[in-house]
Amino acid sequence: MEKAPIATVFRKESFNAAHRLHNPDWDTATNQKVFGKCNNPNYHGHNYRLIVGVKGEIDPGTGYVIDMKVLSALIENEIIERYDHRNLNLDVPEFKDTNPSAENIAIEIWKRLHNKLPAKFQISVRLYETDHNYVEYTGPVND
Amino acid sequence: MEKAPIATVFRKESFNAAHRLHNPDWDTATNQKVFGKCNNPNYHGHNYRLIVGVKGEIDPGTGYVIDMKVLSALIENEIIERYDHRNLNLDVPEFKDTNPSAENIAIEIWKRLHNKLPAKFQISVRLYETDHNYVEYTGPVND
Amino acid sequence: MEKAPIATVFRKESFNAAHRLHNPDWDTATNQKVFGKCNNPNYHGHNYRLIVGVKGEIDPGTGYVIDMKVLSALIENEIIERYDHRNLNLDVPEFKDTNPSAENIAIEIWKRLHNKLPAKFQISVRLYETDHNYVEYTGPVND
Amino acid sequence: MEKAPIATVFRKESFNAAHRLHNPDWDTATNQKVFGKCNNPNYHGHNYRLIVGVKGEIDPGTGYVIDMKVLSALIENEIIERYDHRNLNLDVPEFKDTNPSAENIAIEIWKRLHNKLPAKFQISVRLYETDHNYVEYTGPVND
Amino acid sequence: MEKAPIATVFRKESFNAAHRLHNPDWDTATNQKVFGKCNNPNYHGHNYRLIVGVKGEIDPGTGYVIDMKVLSALIENEIIERYDHRNLNLDVPEFKDTNPSAENIAIEIWKRLHNKLPAKFQISVRLYETDHNYVEYTGPVND
Amino acid sequence: MEKAPIATVFRKESFNAAHRLHNPDWDTATNQKVFGKCNNPNYHGHNYRLIVGVKGEIDPGTGYVIDMKVLSALIENEIIERYDHRNLNLDVPEFKDTNPSAENIAIEIWKRLHNKLPAKFQISVRLYETDHNYVEYTGPVND
Repeated sequence: MEKAPIATVFRKESFNAAHRLHNPDWDTATNQKVFGKCNNPNYHGHNYRLIVGVKGEIDPGTGYVIDMKVLSALIENEIIERYDHRNLNLDVPEFKDTNPSAENIAIEIWKRLHNKLPAKFQISVRLYETDHNYVEYTGPVND
Repeated sequence: MEKAPIATVFRKESFNAAHRLHNPDWDTATNQKVFGKCNNPNYHGHNYRLIVGVKGEIDPGTGYVIDMKVLSALIENEIIERYDHRNLNLDVPEFKDTNPSAENIAIEIWKRLHNKLPAKFQISVRLYETDHNYVEYTGPVND
Repeated sequence: MEKAPIATVFRKESFNAAHRLHNPDWDTATNQKVFGKCNNPNYHGHNYRLIVGVKGEIDPGTGYVIDMKVLSALIENEIIERYDHRNLNLDVPEFKDTNPSAENIAIEIWKRLHNKLPAKFQISVRLYETDHNYVEYTGPVND
Repeated sequence: MEKAPIATVFRKESFNAAHRLHNPDWDTATNQKVFGKCNNPNYHGHNYRLIVGVKGEIDPGTGYVIDMKVLSALIENEIIERYDHRNLNLDVPEFKDTNPSAENIAIEIWKRLHNKLPAKFQISVRLYETDHNYVEYTGPVND
Repeated sequence: MEKAPIATVFRKESFNAAHRLHNPDWDTATNQKVFGKCNNPNYHGHNYRLIVGVKGEIDPGTGYVIDMKVLSALIENEIIERYDHRNLNLDVPEFKDTNPSAENIAIEIWKRLHNKLPAKFQISVRLYETDHNYVEYTGPVND
Repeated sequence: MEKAPIATVFRKESFNAAHRLHNPDWDTATNQKVFGKCNNPNYHGHNYRLIVGVKGEIDPGTGYVIDMKVLSALIENEIIERYDHRNLNLDVPEFKDTNPSAENIAIEIWKRLHNKLPAKFQISVRLYETDHNYVEYTGPVND
């Protein structure tokens, strides 16, 4: 029997949020030196663009790795509802004690999606903080 | 004598800022009803993309309407330095009493550039709040 | 009293549709000669990207020309619901007898939005058929 | 002797096509439930953007992995000529019995290019169905 | 009789060229001061993106302002063939004595297209020198 | 102890340069046959867009793989200062004897960045020569 082919599908979404880079274990001078204008105590913000990849076998009945309507709704419910038009430091529990760098936001997104998607899928998260800076996280299995 | 041809040159820049839509003359319920999630008291944010147009005669010596290095430096000094990595409501005086909607930000940008550029130029400002929403302001002369 | 400033706001949406360029008053050979591969009787399709511009006074209370949530919902209800994932020639009444060229689609979109938006607004429609071809229609007033 | 360095080159092309998601083994109700508006019997369509990657040694004489003129012409002849301005379900034999999901289209593109390119190259296919949905297929060797 | 509606259609093309900003009436020091690194005697280069707009009545038979295949072929023959993979200063006669600034290139493109297109059309040329700098020229009639 | 998670951060920059594809070991006819219009002796040019990826552990203090300000300054100093507004064949020593194909430019960029970045990082270079052609090089370790 022929094995089902494997592909990766990607879904792009976006959210707009305020944040501030800040390490509470450091004093003000160190925070300002390390994070510069990103440490502004009044916050700044971004249009975050998010691309979620799901790798797995193509279902022979649908021709889908995963139904993009299902994936889009999952990202909407788990990520966009939670982060969009929020202050990441003040409004989002996982960044109360974790600096909301693009790297750390990508990890939290990956964890939340990984918890909800079937284990058979490999998940990747690409997060654009600006048009010039982005980050990719593919989970602890890729270490 | 042949008249110098007229063209419009455009320069694209960007800044990242936090803001909140809020009318202090209204009560909380009205603000929430009108502005929805954009009224979040903890702010949210955007990567604002800015396109400034300058229309005027082409200088026969340089072949320029205006030197783009000069225009870029002016936008940097007047706008980016002032708005980038800032909270528009808290850190920027012109939005203490003016709601920082994309429309109002575009007007303030236009005014600041108009004050610094020679009067012979017609100035236009296009401001992208997101990839899906943007605004254009061309000054009071176009009314 | 100071006059309210005038700006133009733009909202970008998209829809995916099949179509065929065909003039029923012409014979097959003429249709094929004029429209080439766009005349394929089995249809082809596009991701149409739509940018709607609304020009008007900025409301001093909201700082808005028009609430973008309202404009987006209107485009959704009047245009996207009607055209998305449709065959323009077969499923959409206004193209039963009108060739669904980008120009004609733009005019129909403009008319539908114009009928629903307050008369004080000037409306523009930009429709991208591909990344390389697009059309702009601003209504009969601009003739 | 120094080994030739290995790089991947990418070529971006596009085609416009109509399609319909449909599994002929299922009844109408199931097709509508699974595929939703993508099951429209009159078809809808997309501007498909295609990015083909070719990984291999850099030829020391040309500095090329592969001549991009050759790669572009191959994609034109094998894929664009075959799919552009076509109805994938009706006009393209490989989708008579295979649902033209983005995943399945990507596989067919990969196979056609793999059959024509020298075996020394690793081929990847990225296919954008919309700006928000895309798929990547790298062949059975990557399973 | 109803007047034919008026729309503007746009076609996007691109070309890759080398150039150098230089005024032969000035000495070396002045050229370097005014044009900076753009005055490099060995040239630098750009991927110029060109958007040509044609405004006119929509033909009731075709639904076209102008056949985009015709417009695209005209741009190819008149502009791309002439400028693509060329050194604008050395290979293109109109820039022997005219500084190839984006402004001046846009004017030359406009003139060449205006000479070949029917007089009933209004032509606009937008030329992107980079993602951050572009120019628009709409002909002497707009002065 | 939990291992630090691993992510890849990407920084996008750009430079504008002239070049010519040419192999000095071949005669003129062979060069013209192989490289076509890219062999123009007067050069042509591109807006090169560069995306540098750095893969490594996320620092628990900063939440960074690497400070993007540091990475951006390094790319500026090592690559942009060296290549921007230059003629790659004439002005840049590493292309005196090496054909400046996109592949070879990507390798040189990788080497220069690899020499300056800590050995713990895996570096990738993606170089867009045009919107349609790009190349990726990840170093000799990936062979």
